[in-house]
Amino acid sequence: MNFLEERIIKDGVVKEGNVLKVDSFLNHQMDIKLLDEMGAEFKRRFAKKPINKILTIESSGIGIACVAAQHFDVPVVFAKKSQSINLDGDMYVAEVESFTHKCRNHVIVAQRFLTPEDRVLIIDDFLANGCALQGLIQIVQSSGAIVEGIGIAIEKGFQSGGRIIRNLGFQLESLAIVDGMDAATGHIQFRDQSKMQENVFVSEDENICRSSTLD
Amino acid sequence: MNFLEERIIKDGVVKEGNVLKVDSFLNHQMDIKLLDEMGAEFKRRFAKKPINKILTIESSGIGIACVAAQHFDVPVVFAKKSQSINLDGDMYVAEVESFTHKCRNHVIVAQRFLTPEDRVLIIDDFLANGCALQGLIQIVQSSGAIVEGIGIAIEKGFQSGGRIIRNLGFQLESLAIVDGMDAATGHIQFRDQSKMQENVFVSEDENICRSSTLD
Repeated sequence: MNFLEERIIKDGVVKEGNVLKVDSFLNHQMDIKLLDEMGAEFKRRFAKKPINKILTIESSGIGIACVAAQHFDVPVVFAKKSQSINLDGDMYVAEVESFTHKCRNHVIVAQRFLTPEDRVLIIDDFLANGCALQGLIQIVQSSGAIVEGIGIAIEKGFQSGGRIIRNLGFQLESLAIVDGMDAATGHIQFRDQSKMQENVFVSEDENICRSSTLD
Repeated sequence: MNFLEERIIKDGVVKEGNVLKVDSFLNHQMDIKLLDEMGAEFKRRFAKKPINKILTIESSGIGIACVAAQHFDVPVVFAKKSQSINLDGDMYVAEVESFTHKCRNHVIVAQRFLTPEDRVLIIDDFLANGCALQGLIQIVQSSGAIVEGIGIAIEKGFQSGGRIIRNLGFQLESLAIVDGMDAATGHIQFRDQSKMQENVFVSEDENICRSSTLD
């Protein structure tokens, strides 16, 4: 069990509906030393990639991305979820659905912050069905930049996002993959990443999510 | 002129309507080395304060707060702007108006992340009329915690937020205070903070903003 899995066991809370609450250390209150340890681990896993930019999405990805960026010595761009009046100029826009918030959002990045010279590491806190992530990938590819890898803190391995992204050929590194949770007992089952295989059932109908690049 | 003022002169863009765009290095794309320098400067200015927690508000405050937190060796809590279905339990809520987005938001912090033992440094990227900041202050005070200080990247000195907060007796440290901007020429006038006086006119009717703690 790695440092993040240990922390999830210690401070994570399993709720009904496959909700894993990690808001005491990851996405409401943030343990900066933990974030730093995560950044070092991302750097180790993507050490061979020529990354020159980190892309994340507001809000809870930003802290992880900014601390990780210190290990890569690169700037961070965060995608916005709705159009701000301070965001002008040409923008890349993808429409995505949020599982958590049960709504559609436009994911937006100003075009001048992604160029064909960029070698991008995408970082986010959670991966479930992966719709937001697919929107980010489309935006990077629309710009002519290259997705060098994707770093996730916690992947819900029983949802389809991770499998889809790996099937597409991306190097996806999730520091913890939760294959099952039991709200009654609080038990959390992590995938043994050393075996590098998926042994959980993912229903095909979970694969459907909308993510279309509009610009 | 300090390092942030120099960067604003170099890369900031003045737009009509007293808009200062710093999205190439501060609040869309983020220069992490600059954020680290800002964190060191906040630590210098609040060196005597017994700060054990940093509070910010999504989204653009989070990166600054997380990098600054490394200099203080404390956790970060970020206030959320609208209720998420993953946020349960008792919460502190303040209703505030956003100048930028021309709408009202609820600013929310889970009660268990602010306690009477907390000595809080509030960090944000911009201070204009200060309504969001007043909401954060109310939330901290509702919890029984103490606001030890407020660290802002860029204050619009020609709006009333900074004066109100200082009049209330808080140690407010803005790394750059813009007293005037000219969209036609691109000129930016910074306040000379070494003189520690306000010599700009702020109309009284700017003082009115709504910020009521609901819980």
